[in-house]
Amino acid sequence: MSTSDAAGPADRSQRQYNFSAGPATLPVEALREVKDELPVYDHVGASVMEISHRSPAYDEIEASAREHLRALLDLDDDWHILFLQGGARMQFYQVPLNFLPEDGVADYVVSGRWGVKAVAEAERVGGVNVAASSEDADFSYVPDVAEWDLTPDASYVHITTNETVNGNQMTDDPVLDVPVVTDASSEFLSRPMDLEGYGLIYAGAQKNVGPAGVTVVLVHDDFLQRRTQPLPTMLDYGTHAERRYNTPPVFAIYMVEKVCRWLRNQGGIDAIHAINRRKARMLYDAIDATDFYRGTVDPEDRSTMNATFRLHDSDLEPVFLQKAEQEGLLGLSGHRSVGGVRASMYNAMPEAGVRRLVQFMEEFERTHG
Amino acid sequence: MSTSDAAGPADRSQRQYNFSAGPATLPVEALREVKDELPVYDHVGASVMEISHRSPAYDEIEASAREHLRALLDLDDDWHILFLQGGARMQFYQVPLNFLPEDGVADYVVSGRWGVKAVAEAERVGGVNVAASSEDADFSYVPDVAEWDLTPDASYVHITTNETVNGNQMTDDPVLDVPVVTDASSEFLSRPMDLEGYGLIYAGAQKNVGPAGVTVVLVHDDFLQRRTQPLPTMLDYGTHAERRYNTPPVFAIYMVEKVCRWLRNQGGIDAIHAINRRKARMLYDAIDATDFYRGTVDPEDRSTMNATFRLHDSDLEPVFLQKAEQEGLLGLSGHRSVGGVRASMYNAMPEAGVRRLVQFMEEFERTHG
Repeated sequence: MSTSDAAGPADRSQRQYNFSAGPATLPVEALREVKDELPVYDHVGASVMEISHRSPAYDEIEASAREHLRALLDLDDDWHILFLQGGARMQFYQVPLNFLPEDGVADYVVSGRWGVKAVAEAERVGGVNVAASSEDADFSYVPDVAEWDLTPDASYVHITTNETVNGNQMTDDPVLDVPVVTDASSEFLSRPMDLEGYGLIYAGAQKNVGPAGVTVVLVHDDFLQRRTQPLPTMLDYGTHAERRYNTPPVFAIYMVEKVCRWLRNQGGIDAIHAINRRKARMLYDAIDATDFYRGTVDPEDRSTMNATFRLHDSDLEPVFLQKAEQEGLLGLSGHRSVGGVRASMYNAMPEAGVRRLVQFMEEFERTHG
Repeated sequence: MSTSDAAGPADRSQRQYNFSAGPATLPVEALREVKDELPVYDHVGASVMEISHRSPAYDEIEASAREHLRALLDLDDDWHILFLQGGARMQFYQVPLNFLPEDGVADYVVSGRWGVKAVAEAERVGGVNVAASSEDADFSYVPDVAEWDLTPDASYVHITTNETVNGNQMTDDPVLDVPVVTDASSEFLSRPMDLEGYGLIYAGAQKNVGPAGVTVVLVHDDFLQRRTQPLPTMLDYGTHAERRYNTPPVFAIYMVEKVCRWLRNQGGIDAIHAINRRKARMLYDAIDATDFYRGTVDPEDRSTMNATFRLHDSDLEPVFLQKAEQEGLLGLSGHRSVGGVRASMYNAMPEAGVRRLVQFMEEFERTHG
């Protein structure tokens, strides 16, 4: 699981530190379990990919994944846990389709690229009020809740609690007059959440929860009951809240079960949150210690999950990224829409990985500063 | 990969013959590759589940999966290959959403349970004409194309070339005045297809192509250009035909690549089709050799993929299923909506598996006949 501290080409037949924004690093323990469980899963005579989604073995896996999520987030029975497909992108459409009447209005707070995409899909369904946006400042901050221009009778308020591309995070969970919906993809299970104000929380799994191919949706029953009817069966949250309707993405849910079990073994959300804060502090301290690097987000709104930064000399960025890759620090390129450097430090990234990155940054500055 | 021929409890820590209708048996060679490629894939320093979907390593996997599909089905460049999510169930809605105007009509031929579901979703979008149905005969046959009551200016004709639950198959690919759309989920890549009449072919992967979590959609460019505009971005086939829009279900596509490569190594579609016909003949001959068993579908419409049959004494069916399971012949229960026995013999089921099932059926008849 580790790369040598000595500079030089890393052996990529071994695991390296992977800072990819998603699909992203997973707990190596979970991957080793998968390896052990091939080609036969736990005395069922077949692999987990080959058994019926109506079989007792699969029932157990899915029930265990749900139970871990309930325990980790302290969810009561009013919260439905759904395992859907299509990623956050599908949620951008499915949320308004279910909850925004054609003649209604939903408020959207836009603090990054994903919020912009969510607005575009909602506009196909009904009225959208952009209650706040930091687009004119390149999403370098999160608009303060006191300044959101909210519609009194909005169907919901949509936020993005962590903007993966822009590297900002909203850490106070808002409690408003109407239910809040959040795209929590890149911070889900990374910090304690106050669920009180939320009606629906969605997260593409491929950051903190599992591989690409499943989206975890938490929907509160009070909010669920407000949805429009009728809806296309597969896009109706009620279909999936009621029962296991269609063939689920079995392997991805099997991985979610492993990742959530791993997280509970780490001590749960509070324990991982403490580690996540230490990792973020270590990296941001390194960025702030010198003018050679420069964070792109206001310090109070910086994400613990996705740290975005630039080099003082942008011509050096390709050199930095190439050398990092050679040394086994993978996936550090900023999103293609913004460039620069992005270090994603999801739950499964060990502190030693961030320490190694900070060392590399110091070495790079000594050589190129 | 084999079970002992001697009767007695099978060792289910070993692979057994798995007749599950889907998720279904996969080539063991593909599963062994996955095992070998954990926790590090091919010198990328991470597993395949952890790398960016914009990385060269993933690009290669997806390009290879496409190339195998093009070669297997002899697809020219007018055919787009899409890897979508949500299974055939989502296609039931996505097809009419793209191609059936509100004031238009689509023809549906209903030869089983899945056709019924497809009709119900299309009716939410526009006009549906059921051009033919065998529902009044419990879907024991496929309505003859000469008797389909087609609408001259229909947007498309929807068929289900293999009905997984009911065990029938349409082996002549129709060429009609309007484009044909087929749900080919449970027969995709099992036989040569004449593509001439088709506009769109969709298949949930979890039968013949890979694990649950990806749907292979082939859409001809001429048909694609007829779609309604505007559409929700994720549900517009054009979005995915144009480029890799969102994070794909990476692991499922990686498996599709392996399964298709395996199939080419077996000699491709013609070779597997010959094997599939031999397997089906072996089983149906065993069913027809005695009054103890009874097929549920007219002989000329029987599926090579899903053989559905009953025992002359239906009280014996639970005994048959339980004993089969004990001996390592897995997943033989008929669909919960119809009962009875169903043996799914997808591409990855070896002939030896069907031979073992036939032996078991003969033994069971000797003991209980």
